[in-house]
Amino acid sequence: MQLIDGKATAAAIKKEIAEEVERIVAAGGKRPHLAAVLVGHDGGSETYVRNKVLACEACGFESTLIRYEDDVTEAELLACVDRLNHHDEVDGFIVQLPLPAHISEQKIIEAIDYRKDVDGFHPINVGRMAIGLPCFISATPKGILELLQRYHIETTGRKCVILGRSNIVGKPMAQLMMQKLYGNATVTVCHSQSTDLKKEAREADILIAAVGSPAFVTADMVKPGAVVIDVGTTRVPDASRPKGFRLQGDVDFEQVAPLCSYITPVPGGVGPMTICMLMMNTLAAGKKEIYA
Amino acid sequence: MQLIDGKATAAAIKKEIAEEVERIVAAGGKRPHLAAVLVGHDGGSETYVRNKVLACEACGFESTLIRYEDDVTEAELLACVDRLNHHDEVDGFIVQLPLPAHISEQKIIEAIDYRKDVDGFHPINVGRMAIGLPCFISATPKGILELLQRYHIETTGRKCVILGRSNIVGKPMAQLMMQKLYGNATVTVCHSQSTDLKKEAREADILIAAVGSPAFVTADMVKPGAVVIDVGTTRVPDASRPKGFRLQGDVDFEQVAPLCSYITPVPGGVGPMTICMLMMNTLAAGKKEIYA
Repeated sequence: MQLIDGKATAAAIKKEIAEEVERIVAAGGKRPHLAAVLVGHDGGSETYVRNKVLACEACGFESTLIRYEDDVTEAELLACVDRLNHHDEVDGFIVQLPLPAHISEQKIIEAIDYRKDVDGFHPINVGRMAIGLPCFISATPKGILELLQRYHIETTGRKCVILGRSNIVGKPMAQLMMQKLYGNATVTVCHSQSTDLKKEAREADILIAAVGSPAFVTADMVKPGAVVIDVGTTRVPDASRPKGFRLQGDVDFEQVAPLCSYITPVPGGVGPMTICMLMMNTLAAGKKEIYA
Repeated sequence: MQLIDGKATAAAIKKEIAEEVERIVAAGGKRPHLAAVLVGHDGGSETYVRNKVLACEACGFESTLIRYEDDVTEAELLACVDRLNHHDEVDGFIVQLPLPAHISEQKIIEAIDYRKDVDGFHPINVGRMAIGLPCFISATPKGILELLQRYHIETTGRKCVILGRSNIVGKPMAQLMMQKLYGNATVTVCHSQSTDLKKEAREADILIAAVGSPAFVTADMVKPGAVVIDVGTTRVPDASRPKGFRLQGDVDFEQVAPLCSYITPVPGGVGPMTICMLMMNTLAAGKKEIYA
């Protein structure tokens, strides 16, 4: 069993990005510039956004953090999106989710210029990904593809089973894994309504768990030799930890790991890759690699 | 074994649409108006477009056919799309594919206002479908959903195997069949690179064949009692037919039909539903049901 080290991979990629940025700047080019919009003071969101700003620094990007209180109106937020859409210096930006209930997340997402949508949530990017056109691919699925690639894990023709059908992981992952251009695998998507999810999971050469249920994947659901990718990050109360909780994946790691050829740990697997992929998308935006 | 009669279902739907149009007109509303753009004189395209115009008549729609010769420039075609985008009377329009090689189909598709994109090929509609938002769903997948629904075929929790991963059938079909809102099924997508396609197919409660290879699906690939949906329509030379060919599905009908609970014939199964779904989309466009 080999551990897929997302933390080390993410660090290596950030170093590669930083080196490329220095080459761009040395050649007279502009540093990529990411803006992040944060509404309110949700603990998780604060942490994510802080880590995104730190990642920008590590990559040599410019970054701008725009903060609003919880009572910001939808109109104010839309006006902010509009300013960022037209801001010449900003290459890409994100609006950190979730947003307060009085603001339509979908309306905000659709207001973002898709050419600056480095989160890859705008329907144009989602649609272009589905039909295999150049686009911003959202961070978690992109990070998983990157891990598979950097660990030279063969996917073509192999059976990939995805547990979960969320818009941000399960569905895009399925689309990517089935495409010739990316995974080129035989893909099955299981979810809460699947009649025999355990049996389906056992067929997987590559099992991607994204259900958000701690230790959901047990040893009897994994074929010996399978590659297991754990996308779950549930906060489980744990008095022994300084923060009072620990992150628990969707996979019962102790049971499952000995069966696998490769497995991602939680934390330190898929998680560190997501912010890193946001950086990759921002670099691509800065270079106008995807959209002119 | 019950035959799924696409021809009769399509006729019934067109009648329902025509009745609704008459109610709309009687209430002082406007007849839905579909425009079709046809480039060149390809036999298949001529037939499709003629049938679309006839279907408009059957449904009580206005229709406009715009013809160009093969040597039309991309710029001329883009100008035509722009005129139709801004044409107040036209609710929806299609540009019949394929286009001559000197014209980028993707560029034309993306130039169409997604609110008039009744073919559902614009990335915005593709993306909105993927994430479960209201949108124009393209005709073939929509027609298959409609057949399953009208024949009261349960899909929730069942295993749906899709053979083929084209942008117009396999991929959107997978997205629809896995969504809670539509199929709510466990979905597997197989293709040319799948290691054991036959075995996968045999697992299907609902088997959707869209590979474009005549009689590809044989009896050993079908579980007894399965629902088999045949999307294939290959022209096979046949001297005994007036036109010199017959349409052959992806399924070896003689062998497979006795095994099935339900099966679509070719012709007369999925085929007749596609134009009918274009009419449904045009009605929705006329009523501004999806986009304001």
